[in-house]
Amino acid sequence: MSTPHPAADPAAGAAVKAADRAHVFHSWSAQGLIDPLAVAGAEGSWFWDYDGNRYLDFSSQLVNTNIGHQHPKVVAAIQEQAARLCTIAPGFAVDVRSEAARLIAERTPGDLDKIFFTNGGAEAVENAVRMARLHTGRPKVLSAYRSYHGATAAAINLTGDPRRWPSDTASAGVVHFWAPFLYRSPFHADSERQECERALQHLEDTIAFEGPATIAAIVLETIPGTAGIMVPPPGYLPGVREICDRYGIVFVLDEVMAGFGRTGRWFAADHFDVVPDLLTFAKGVNSGYVPLGGVAISAEIAATFDERPYPGGLTYSGHPLACASAVATINAMAEEGIVENAARIGEQVLGPGLRELAGRHPSVGEVRGLGAFWAVELVRDRATREPLVPYAAAGEAMTAFTAACKKNGLWPFVNMNRTHVVPPCTITEEEAKQGLAALDEALTVADAYTA
Amino acid sequence: MSTPHPAADPAAGAAVKAADRAHVFHSWSAQGLIDPLAVAGAEGSWFWDYDGNRYLDFSSQLVNTNIGHQHPKVVAAIQEQAARLCTIAPGFAVDVRSEAARLIAERTPGDLDKIFFTNGGAEAVENAVRMARLHTGRPKVLSAYRSYHGATAAAINLTGDPRRWPSDTASAGVVHFWAPFLYRSPFHADSERQECERALQHLEDTIAFEGPATIAAIVLETIPGTAGIMVPPPGYLPGVREICDRYGIVFVLDEVMAGFGRTGRWFAADHFDVVPDLLTFAKGVNSGYVPLGGVAISAEIAATFDERPYPGGLTYSGHPLACASAVATINAMAEEGIVENAARIGEQVLGPGLRELAGRHPSVGEVRGLGAFWAVELVRDRATREPLVPYAAAGEAMTAFTAACKKNGLWPFVNMNRTHVVPPCTITEEEAKQGLAALDEALTVADAYTA
Ligand SMILES: Cc1ncc(COP(=O)(O)O)c(C=O)c1O
Ligand SMILES: Cc1ncc(COP(=O)(O)O)c(C=O)c1O
Repeated sequence: MSTPHPAADPAAGAAVKAADRAHVFHSWSAQGLIDPLAVAGAEGSWFWDYDGNRYLDFSSQLVNTNIGHQHPKVVAAIQEQAARLCTIAPGFAVDVRSEAARLIAERTPGDLDKIFFTNGGAEAVENAVRMARLHTGRPKVLSAYRSYHGATAAAINLTGDPRRWPSDTASAGVVHFWAPFLYRSPFHADSERQECERALQHLEDTIAFEGPATIAAIVLETIPGTAGIMVPPPGYLPGVREICDRYGIVFVLDEVMAGFGRTGRWFAADHFDVVPDLLTFAKGVNSGYVPLGGVAISAEIAATFDERPYPGGLTYSGHPLACASAVATINAMAEEGIVENAARIGEQVLGPGLRELAGRHPSVGEVRGLGAFWAVELVRDRATREPLVPYAAAGEAMTAFTAACKKNGLWPFVNMNRTHVVPPCTITEEEAKQGLAALDEALTVADAYTA
Repeated sequence: MSTPHPAADPAAGAAVKAADRAHVFHSWSAQGLIDPLAVAGAEGSWFWDYDGNRYLDFSSQLVNTNIGHQHPKVVAAIQEQAARLCTIAPGFAVDVRSEAARLIAERTPGDLDKIFFTNGGAEAVENAVRMARLHTGRPKVLSAYRSYHGATAAAINLTGDPRRWPSDTASAGVVHFWAPFLYRSPFHADSERQECERALQHLEDTIAFEGPATIAAIVLETIPGTAGIMVPPPGYLPGVREICDRYGIVFVLDEVMAGFGRTGRWFAADHFDVVPDLLTFAKGVNSGYVPLGGVAISAEIAATFDERPYPGGLTYSGHPLACASAVATINAMAEEGIVENAARIGEQVLGPGLRELAGRHPSVGEVRGLGAFWAVELVRDRATREPLVPYAAAGEAMTAFTAACKKNGLWPFVNMNRTHVVPPCTITEEEAKQGLAALDEALTVADAYTA
């Protein structure tokens, strides 16, 4: 397999790390307890440090490099746009902004044909919520436990994982409900169909008791990502769509993580034939080469702001460099069949491979997913399904598992008791198999912690 | 004067505009009532459209292109970094991220030596507020009327202008007070000294009645920007610092607009010899060539998160392309004396020139500012100081004034009854004078609306 062979330069790596520890404050971390790896370079599905270690990137960083690292067409587009026009205020019309909006609108489901650009996912969700509240004139927003929607104070309060807890002072009007998740069914269901029916009933009940006329929006990740890649049962999202229509509630699908090829379709909504009123995106839209996110807006909601000003914005909305990289990314993904590659790798390599590992490793409770979007749920006990580490806690078992992956040259995405298999959508069959082999060894370490 | 001479291509411009109207949803606007100018290119203090019209940029876009458009050193740095490494997750250590943090920490006042990076200003404020709340364990945050801190739902609620109103559902714990502004004194003061004393007393009173032990932070723009560039009286910010110390309140200065050379110093705080506990930045840090913002954190607050994880983050924190452009921007600003140029242009050209215009135009109520950061307050009546258009409203007078500026090849920054003179910090004396001449003509239009 042809992969980059980095030259080692430990002294340079030590200098980078020292400067990092002196001045960089890291997200989601205790600053005195972290030891960040100094990265020297990256290409395709790989990145490497200054000591000559290469890692196969089974995390796509934060599940954003759908197109892999340093795709030459995207790099060239950034360089060309930098030479032409790096920045311009949102109020102007600019060629690359218009073109990025067109290419996105062409792919979003239904009539989601107007694009509001942001810098990332949280701001996309913020603006979707503001649009929904203004469109309906209603205050409340429903979102799911087991979800992540970003870390600004409206978005963080939509979030259904522990990152929400410390930021909950501004939660006014956000109500959490339970979405379907058969493996840990909140509804004591024993089939997908039952899970789906009961989840929809639970949502109906929650709406009835909150008051339908007070609810502006229901916000869901089409397939919850960080929370565990729970592919919803087939009827669930159409059911939510129907409920939203019945009560005049805006349906927001957050595809920040699931969008742009990750699931083997352009949008995860395409798997369920469902069209939301607002769809948020970021990450895969340009693989994060330049910060970019946004909201795709239905004709009806866009019309609300035809004569009434939309009261939201940010300095870098529709940033030219970000838009140029989105144009190049979307075009390259289309030309090179990258979405189809994700679908194929999921069906032919990752799905069968992970199920095969599940059969052999007692620590694997469930594998689930599609495309380049898989979760491996690790348990202490397959019968009780007790997680390998408790909810919202770290634990020796997961630390040891993570270390074993890295030792085997695999960079995993780990969250609580799960490892996600979320490589670039460009990953080759050989690379995927190499990653599965490394995972196999690391799971042996996890097995040692089972009951 | 040597300036770029754009070639006209009206057909291309019409196509860009048509695609924009079809698919781009614009911030802060009624989508059906706007007519965005299609921009073809930009250089230094100028940009141009597809019809051969050039505009002298007295707005620096949204007051962010402190280094002017398309600075060759920053463009080159973006191109080089794009070839090396476009993106990497926040958890790693990377050379350009470390170096950007070091260069910023070197310039921030006092011991603000740890940098948390964001994509822009709103997210910087969001994180500053979260840090302050966690550091103090207190819920409330005080901020000023006449302020803007961003449009996410915590930041928008800190905001003291009408953009806050439609987003106020998540305002829990935000209390607004009045900051000094002698020209429209909330305290009926008739001298800077009296304004300062009374403003500090008002803040003390507000704190007493809200309960000092409930207040996590006081957030202030060092010099309020969008709200009107009100340079505070000399004793005010040191007075706020003293109050914060007395009550254990975190002092946050928002320098998203005022920082990085805009006022003729690296930070506006430098004019007042005051060191906040947290300082937010964005815009000028890299002139917005790539979306970037952040928080500079004091040693004491950083220590709070040494062993306790900081519960905030975003996918693109410390983005390599953004950091590389910050490194190049800061180095170029230092090498080329750009901060000093802003100071000199303010003292020798913009200040005297604007005061001279104020003397001749009855529509000018006050001019105020420093460096490349000036406001011209337009009034119907100099005696009553009645604004040319009411607070939070548009009006024919300002529309006519704005159109006159554009007709004269000047792109102004207009907000309510004010025009701000906020050109790039790189502006030459000749350009500044040319802009003042265009302003002179446009003010004649405003004069026609005086009582
Ligand atoms: C579904 C979803 N929404 C929103 C976000 C927030 O995006 P960002 O980190 O760019 O603010 C994320 C980030 O992981 C996400 O996965
Ligand atoms: C002082 C101040 N703070 C925060 C912001 C918000 O920054 P952004 O638009 O990058 O979110 C602005 C933007 O104008 C600002 O001027």
